[in-house]
Amino acid sequence: MSTLQRRTLANAIRALSMDAVQQANSGHPGAPMGMADIAEVLWRDYLQHNPANPHWPNRDRFVLSNGHGSMLLYSLLHLSGYPLTKEDLKQFRQLHSKTPGHPEYGYTEGVETTTGPLGQGLANAVGMALAEKTLAAQFNRPGFDVVNHFTYAFVGDGCLMEGISHEVCSLAGTQELGKLIVFYDDNGISIDGEIEGWFTDDTPTRFRSYNWQVISDVDGHDAKAIIAAIEEARRDTSRPTLVCCKTTIGFGSPNKAGSHDCHGAPLGQAEIQATRQALGWSHGPFEVPEDVSHAWNTIDKGQTLEALWKQLFESYQAKYPLLAEQFLRRIEGSLPENWGEIKKEIFEQQASVTDAAATRKCSQNILQLLGEKIPELLGGSADLAPSNLTMWKGSEAISPAHPNGNYMHYGVREFGMTAIMNGVALYGGFIPYGGTFLMFMEYARNAVRMSALMNLRVIHVYTHDSIGLGEDGPTHQPVEQITALRVTPNLQTWRPCDQFETTVAWLTAIERDEGPSAFILSRQNLPQQKRDSLQQQDIAKGGYILKACSGVPDLILIATGSEIALAMDSAVNLEQKGYEVQVVSMPCAERFAQQPKSYQEKVLPKDNRSRVAIECGHSDYWYKFVGIDGAVIGIDRFGESAPAGELMTMFGFTQEKVVETSIRIIQQNTH
Amino acid sequence: MSTLQRRTLANAIRALSMDAVQQANSGHPGAPMGMADIAEVLWRDYLQHNPANPHWPNRDRFVLSNGHGSMLLYSLLHLSGYPLTKEDLKQFRQLHSKTPGHPEYGYTEGVETTTGPLGQGLANAVGMALAEKTLAAQFNRPGFDVVNHFTYAFVGDGCLMEGISHEVCSLAGTQELGKLIVFYDDNGISIDGEIEGWFTDDTPTRFRSYNWQVISDVDGHDAKAIIAAIEEARRDTSRPTLVCCKTTIGFGSPNKAGSHDCHGAPLGQAEIQATRQALGWSHGPFEVPEDVSHAWNTIDKGQTLEALWKQLFESYQAKYPLLAEQFLRRIEGSLPENWGEIKKEIFEQQASVTDAAATRKCSQNILQLLGEKIPELLGGSADLAPSNLTMWKGSEAISPAHPNGNYMHYGVREFGMTAIMNGVALYGGFIPYGGTFLMFMEYARNAVRMSALMNLRVIHVYTHDSIGLGEDGPTHQPVEQITALRVTPNLQTWRPCDQFETTVAWLTAIERDEGPSAFILSRQNLPQQKRDSLQQQDIAKGGYILKACSGVPDLILIATGSEIALAMDSAVNLEQKGYEVQVVSMPCAERFAQQPKSYQEKVLPKDNRSRVAIECGHSDYWYKFVGIDGAVIGIDRFGESAPAGELMTMFGFTQEKVVETSIRIIQQNTH
Repeated sequence: MSTLQRRTLANAIRALSMDAVQQANSGHPGAPMGMADIAEVLWRDYLQHNPANPHWPNRDRFVLSNGHGSMLLYSLLHLSGYPLTKEDLKQFRQLHSKTPGHPEYGYTEGVETTTGPLGQGLANAVGMALAEKTLAAQFNRPGFDVVNHFTYAFVGDGCLMEGISHEVCSLAGTQELGKLIVFYDDNGISIDGEIEGWFTDDTPTRFRSYNWQVISDVDGHDAKAIIAAIEEARRDTSRPTLVCCKTTIGFGSPNKAGSHDCHGAPLGQAEIQATRQALGWSHGPFEVPEDVSHAWNTIDKGQTLEALWKQLFESYQAKYPLLAEQFLRRIEGSLPENWGEIKKEIFEQQASVTDAAATRKCSQNILQLLGEKIPELLGGSADLAPSNLTMWKGSEAISPAHPNGNYMHYGVREFGMTAIMNGVALYGGFIPYGGTFLMFMEYARNAVRMSALMNLRVIHVYTHDSIGLGEDGPTHQPVEQITALRVTPNLQTWRPCDQFETTVAWLTAIERDEGPSAFILSRQNLPQQKRDSLQQQDIAKGGYILKACSGVPDLILIATGSEIALAMDSAVNLEQKGYEVQVVSMPCAERFAQQPKSYQEKVLPKDNRSRVAIECGHSDYWYKFVGIDGAVIGIDRFGESAPAGELMTMFGFTQEKVVETSIRIIQQNTH
Repeated sequence: MSTLQRRTLANAIRALSMDAVQQANSGHPGAPMGMADIAEVLWRDYLQHNPANPHWPNRDRFVLSNGHGSMLLYSLLHLSGYPLTKEDLKQFRQLHSKTPGHPEYGYTEGVETTTGPLGQGLANAVGMALAEKTLAAQFNRPGFDVVNHFTYAFVGDGCLMEGISHEVCSLAGTQELGKLIVFYDDNGISIDGEIEGWFTDDTPTRFRSYNWQVISDVDGHDAKAIIAAIEEARRDTSRPTLVCCKTTIGFGSPNKAGSHDCHGAPLGQAEIQATRQALGWSHGPFEVPEDVSHAWNTIDKGQTLEALWKQLFESYQAKYPLLAEQFLRRIEGSLPENWGEIKKEIFEQQASVTDAAATRKCSQNILQLLGEKIPELLGGSADLAPSNLTMWKGSEAISPAHPNGNYMHYGVREFGMTAIMNGVALYGGFIPYGGTFLMFMEYARNAVRMSALMNLRVIHVYTHDSIGLGEDGPTHQPVEQITALRVTPNLQTWRPCDQFETTVAWLTAIERDEGPSAFILSRQNLPQQKRDSLQQQDIAKGGYILKACSGVPDLILIATGSEIALAMDSAVNLEQKGYEVQVVSMPCAERFAQQPKSYQEKVLPKDNRSRVAIECGHSDYWYKFVGIDGAVIGIDRFGESAPAGELMTMFGFTQEKVVETSIRIIQQNTH
């Protein structure tokens, strides 16, 4: 400990946070001021990181799950020596700054994940701790702990009220993620006021029921108590630890500390002045005296830490060259060098599938081939493995007794699973995929969005994709869900119709390192379609002509997934009636939208307005493609419980309906 | 106790369940067979209900949260004497039967809620228990407990793994819902197999941390133990009770009991035969011997119970005629007789609003007027009351000390809040409304859908509706969320542009008793628009001409909410350039779609293809209205953290962009 008081160092955070919020005239000073003392101890004494290289693979991970307190993190990054300047802090919450309102992954070096939606940062941290443990089990060798670090998270009351905290903390306990250490900012305040009216859990007891070590009643403003807690937390590596810290929100503010007033609004100039005085912080706005600055700077220490690790890694490399190579490749996120060959082999093998098959089964076929070649695949399902078909022959469950696995039984925890997958993807070294029924994507919905927002290579496997699932009825039959996925920016949603399209979906998703993909797969069998090699190549464009016709088409049928066979049969039927029909398969509308206009025009010529789209999902989405002159055969109401075949008839997914609608549209547009 | 063994009576459930699943060749026999003994004790000895009148207001509520075990409930309803025949049971999972795959509210008398999406039934039960307690506090008088009953729920492992179980059970403990009694079917099996690999919570401890009474280690096949547990549960009326029952899934099946094999598939004829033998149940498929049938039938008992209550209610009516009248009105779900006058008064009062106002504030203005007139409004927010503006001057928080309130502080529990509101609406006597940020609707997404699927009058208040919220950034800025709501069947999504439209949204939602409504409200101020009385009336049609033009328009601008002012200003701008522009306000596209074609044609003449839609949300949705020849000014990427005005400019919500796009479209369509 330098001669500087820890409190003074913590006050640097408080001052920067209140100054930045004031400057932006928007933001949350309360949490940074309340958690500053905990952060000072953790970041200066314990956190193993290198501000000069925020990507050092063996760094400790730090997650601010209560992301509205972003100025805490920005202050820490700035003070520790990350490339985040005082000018950046002054740009808090301004357009294109490195200091947006909530921490945004990819905007700021050192921000490990985007947080703000409460509870999900905690879930990401669980994913990181899981990734650390699994990667360690896969790569560490006796004497060579090349993966060996802690994951720390700060959480607020909101995070712990959210249901996702239950899902992921329960699982973290079961998986014995002992190197996860979570600090609970127990300040008794949320937006509606004092939480005693709506949050009275005995949180320590709750977390003990999850097999966590709980260190309760820690004074979050007493450095000694915090140190003792962290030491104890780190000693137990078989259980995750919750450190319950009593804190005062807005600590230091004479008139607003401890009240909701400092949660989400600037303190105001007068109160900032009073706070400076109360804290004994005499420096101007955004000013940090050199001794404080110096005491915070962690670059030298970080460089030393990384250098030591590099030494270790070099010895490891010498002894285990292949492992080391694979480790570096996986951490980098690149695919095996022979990826081209692997793809070729997979295409060849899957060409042998000729029988009708459910696309969930087609997906499993591909997984069987991919799994052996791509060890970074980390599979899982929210307790629907036998239905989602997310396991392949080489799947090995991850458990405390067997951390060296490649498959997670996430339990009935869709939201937790998805946010954990985000954490795993953020961590690196893995390509996570996870399954549930398409309907229960809704439970996980915001984490799906977060995977897209953070540009993560996460693969969402959604089976039982429509009324085609049959008897389980409307609670299980998706209608509007595919639309919700398709309109999610940066998510690519695939609804393949057979083995070949499913293969392309998987391979494209594996290659896509700038965002997530979702597969919408059928429960019921679908026939295999015939394609020439050009058509095969065009699948990756998202939409292509599956059946051409001679001359200008009288009609274009557009369909996806389980409705492709219906479209193809209806086309034959219509041709027998003398109409020229082109069938467009549109397995990934988002990719189609990214194609050059010339390609789009080839597939869907603008002048041809007789268009009918067929999809067992809400019709509204398809007007984008059929316009005002076309028609959509979709389903705009809730489903029913009945055998699938009867439902398809009842809801009009029949040749009769398609033919009748098509002729009506053709006639309407030729009059 | 009759001479018949309880086990024999429970076996009737087992036999009916396995027979029906076999007949359907689909379904879940395991849970009904495992929980049959618990159900027998609860339903025959304790449940206060009247099969001859499933709508008796003071009945106990029973929720099967593990809804896949639907045959348990159908068996109970059939055996108890509800209008559900043996023929109905034979139609299990068939189209238009009363016995769909999961219990569906409204399909079957006695089914109190639709269950299947795990955890939500439990949340509905919490909502019912809350409604019971609140309604009792509002209406009971000394000696007149006209509202006084229990709410029972069955839950499985899946329900308890789901995060929503944390949210709602935590809140149930805080609210001391002592008349809620939950039976946990602790059978150790879920779809992936034995749960010890993914669910190792100490569940009793967890629930104690929520302030629940927990009765653990109950043998779920021992009637005496079950009776003792229920007695104990009922004695403590200050804490909800969890009864943890150890059970054997598929109890009775010699070869499949205790294993995942009997969870979600028919037992098969041979195993059914073996089970009959093992259980000593010698009767044929769907056969229930008369003595068993007789012992189960609860009609006489139920009629007596209701008659007693009616006596009580008549005395109450005599003593408190106005209260009794209001009670009956509210239970019936009808609005006050003078509703017409109330509406008129509200319209008159709100006409005085002339300044620009955020629509969240407009919503609060209406609440202030409505709240005084409609005491059944039960408000709330997921810890965002000061932001959602869901409280009005008469809002009183519901708490154990003050159960006679009208406002719930739900805490940071969006999913729990929404599913609890569904439970409250199912219970009757209330119109629940609850707020959160539009983005965090996603946390609650499947419960929103469930409110629509069950045709419930639930009002979802979503504020902070676009990049217009500014600095909080992309995690908080909705893009695709409005589309997701609009494509949800039976949900009416309103995005009003000012006070008048907000008023119509509220009044229409209050009147709409066949489904939920969602309000999409701005954080930022919006100007008030001018309308004549015809236009005012047309708002309720969902879309109307806000600004007409002379002759055939050169262009139709379509907008909603915060983009209406932009559309109006742009129209003036375009008219100055010589174009005739019609502006359509489309506050509720779903209602517009229900209007006669002639009305739709008047607002959006089919021949007029120069159409530009403007909405601060994903553009795809709007092609339904602008077609292939029009354009959409929307936002198809994630937002940014910055002051709102800058974002609006950056994302093209400017007159310049609207005018430029409009002229391009006009020119394109006239060439």
